[in-house]
Amino acid sequence: MFKAIVTVKLRPSILDPEGKAIEHALQSLDFQQLSDVRVGKEIELTVDAADRDAAEQAVDDACRKLLANPVMEDYTIELQELTS
Amino acid sequence: MFKAIVTVKLRPSILDPEGKAIEHALQSLDFQQLSDVRVGKEIELTVDAADRDAAEQAVDDACRKLLANPVMEDYTIELQELTS
Repeated sequence: MFKAIVTVKLRPSILDPEGKAIEHALQSLDFQQLSDVRVGKEIELTVDAADRDAAEQAVDDACRKLLANPVMEDYTIELQELTS
Repeated sequence: MFKAIVTVKLRPSILDPEGKAIEHALQSLDFQQLSDVRVGKEIELTVDAADRDAAEQAVDDACRKLLANPVMEDYTIELQELTS
């Protein structure tokens, strides 16, 4: 069993309206020192797989089919083995 | 200058309907080995601060005031120094 942490971010060339909205809110709360806000998703899931390769393969497959939009987003996968 | 990565997650006791929806979608795509999906946010920002303590203080302040909902969410802050 593995725990997978998938981080999905908009590609740097894609505008991030949610990040811009947060940046404006920060400015109006007087956080002038905070800028360049980008918002991504972190998806945690449990993977029932025999080994690390099989787990990575399954999660990568799920990212391409469902979790990320490969045209606009990049993703990274981090795996931790769960001791049962 | 620092880059801050803020990870905001729903507390474990709070139901995550977005995670549940993803889990159902994964099941119907035949990813039976993936379960316990939880969705969080990863917010990247640039911090203009003299030192690490000041940067952490500013980001923590922003988390409490805007980025996270302390009743329902937990957050972690990771800082990386940017070489200019």
